[in-house]
Amino acid sequence: MNNRFFTIIKGGKANHRRGIINTPNGVINTPVFMPVGTLGPVKTTTPAELRSLGAEIILNNTYHLYLRPGVEIIQNAGGLHKFTSWDGPILTDSGGFQFYSLGALRKITDEGISFQSHIDGSKHFFSPETVIDIQSAFGSDIVMPLDVCLSSPSDYQSTRRAGNLTVDWVERSIKRFNSIDTTSQQSALFGIVQGGTYSDLRREYAQRLSEHDLPGYSIGGLAVGEDKELMWEMVAITNEILPKDKPRYLMGVGTPADIIRAVALGIDMFDCVMPTRNARNGTVFTHSGRLVIKGAKFARDNNPIEEDCNCLACRRFSRSYIRHLLNVNEILGLRLTTIHNLYFYLNLMREIRESIENDSFPEFMSGFLSQFEENC
Amino acid sequence: MNNRFFTIIKGGKANHRRGIINTPNGVINTPVFMPVGTLGPVKTTTPAELRSLGAEIILNNTYHLYLRPGVEIIQNAGGLHKFTSWDGPILTDSGGFQFYSLGALRKITDEGISFQSHIDGSKHFFSPETVIDIQSAFGSDIVMPLDVCLSSPSDYQSTRRAGNLTVDWVERSIKRFNSIDTTSQQSALFGIVQGGTYSDLRREYAQRLSEHDLPGYSIGGLAVGEDKELMWEMVAITNEILPKDKPRYLMGVGTPADIIRAVALGIDMFDCVMPTRNARNGTVFTHSGRLVIKGAKFARDNNPIEEDCNCLACRRFSRSYIRHLLNVNEILGLRLTTIHNLYFYLNLMREIRESIENDSFPEFMSGFLSQFEENC
Repeated sequence: MNNRFFTIIKGGKANHRRGIINTPNGVINTPVFMPVGTLGPVKTTTPAELRSLGAEIILNNTYHLYLRPGVEIIQNAGGLHKFTSWDGPILTDSGGFQFYSLGALRKITDEGISFQSHIDGSKHFFSPETVIDIQSAFGSDIVMPLDVCLSSPSDYQSTRRAGNLTVDWVERSIKRFNSIDTTSQQSALFGIVQGGTYSDLRREYAQRLSEHDLPGYSIGGLAVGEDKELMWEMVAITNEILPKDKPRYLMGVGTPADIIRAVALGIDMFDCVMPTRNARNGTVFTHSGRLVIKGAKFARDNNPIEEDCNCLACRRFSRSYIRHLLNVNEILGLRLTTIHNLYFYLNLMREIRESIENDSFPEFMSGFLSQFEENC
Repeated sequence: MNNRFFTIIKGGKANHRRGIINTPNGVINTPVFMPVGTLGPVKTTTPAELRSLGAEIILNNTYHLYLRPGVEIIQNAGGLHKFTSWDGPILTDSGGFQFYSLGALRKITDEGISFQSHIDGSKHFFSPETVIDIQSAFGSDIVMPLDVCLSSPSDYQSTRRAGNLTVDWVERSIKRFNSIDTTSQQSALFGIVQGGTYSDLRREYAQRLSEHDLPGYSIGGLAVGEDKELMWEMVAITNEILPKDKPRYLMGVGTPADIIRAVALGIDMFDCVMPTRNARNGTVFTHSGRLVIKGAKFARDNNPIEEDCNCLACRRFSRSYIRHLLNVNEILGLRLTTIHNLYFYLNLMREIRESIENDSFPEFMSGFLSQFEENC
């Protein structure tokens, strides 16, 4: 093991690869899925449970934590790791996607983003520099620059303006990051490639950001409503240009099938609320597709969610009991579906990594997809 | 160890005693606190967590489980233990207290109780026999007979009517229980002494029920609004008459101070929603009294809920973080306050048992009360 940020331990002619990322708070095996802990915890779970499920890194949301409990309280605790008691690597986003979701509540200028809190309507302003400062106060292991997200479809001129502004903001972020980061801290600032569904813009931004030799690159603005084929085209085009020796993070993606397809295109990192949010809605993932576990047909079903699954929920509890728990609003029901879905995602990543190590990723992928999608 | 239902392993001239209860699903050390799992789980927790907190028996609610998911679904799973995955002893109540809470929605006759579901208004009827049948289908280790609960104060005549009916129903319950219970099952049916705040009625019912030589006796209808001094008087009077070699269960009690005082009067078993319900309202117990952990004064408090507490919440999380979690409605916050409060109660019982074993219960009691009540 060396001290490089990213090391590819198994690559080849194909795009998929097996890597290791070094962070101040531990090592991450890629391809990796990062469970989302919007306000600190990955919903319903303790850090110890996350570890036992196989999570190596989690994502926390800068925008949400800035509003509640506020940066000063997290700083007073000694940073996010101490505050939340998660002692592994943390990636924090920049708020860009949340601002996109805020819609009319935010205004974008060249300087930054003015916004109103979705909680109390209070007014705030984030510049690229503010966002770096906040994540530095958090002690994040992987830092995202402020970016401008658009919905899809967006016209060429708007996409170009947003993409250019994002490159400008990434450059301002690099300056700020380098001015405050210490060598002991060793956190990593990623670039974010925007460009919507326009190939020439994706190529241009991937090229311009690659010149900064950043430790990693995110692909943003996808999985926001565009056609899936178009999404894969954009991922492929962007990955052709991004440096091969840096990790690539496809933000906000996605379904189990999306993740495995993205790995085939050379993506290394993923985050998504899908396993946790679906769990709370009573939808669980299995290798044969999704189950709406609240359904009446499971009322007398004493089988686990998925036969042969090794998660705590499947080892100890039946579909019948989990359905009952969800129907009477017992928190344990949400815990069990969350544990199962996170296990499903994190176990899928383990299987993906093992298949890459064993040179059997294409076979694993087609086997998984044929069983999973047939029933989805 | 013998096979008797209840063995006093340390008694003496004073009323407090240290015992062991044998059930088909394991041994219980008394004095014992039984966490309440109304609809199956003790709210927010898994069986494994309960075990690690030191719980040896839990209480499930017959009325609630009868309505949801229904007896047939639990029977189809193989009983409550298999359905809920809690493999230790289970005590089920009879619904008597829930009917008392239903107020206008229930009607009591000599035959039983007609009631409307608090969920959908559907009409149902519980007789003493029905309630035994349900608990038999559940596979409960300790079974409660249907009783008639009154609010306090109730006049003498109403209390007498309710108390006589309860004795009549206990006798019908014994008949039904003996007609269906198998020797292999070995579950235990308790008597319930009612009588409100009238000494002569308490004495009469304790005497009449004692004659049935039941494996254990519950004291009901207390902690429902009467003066505390009156409650202790009733407990003392009842315990004087109940057979010394049978466990006594003070239903629905209470605060940590109540429990320790009741142990001094010879009570062996307790159940209460106080630790779990308080937890979900953001109130936590410490040896120096209660804390409303959501309070602004804890916003920057990086100490655990209680210094030197060995529970998971105190070993890993700060007041500041738990306050944040509760304020943003993160389920983990409810889990952590629940774990702490259950640990506090179960640890108090451990300390009580140890002090009885070491002949130091009176000193332990006065030390605990002086510190706890001073700040409550």
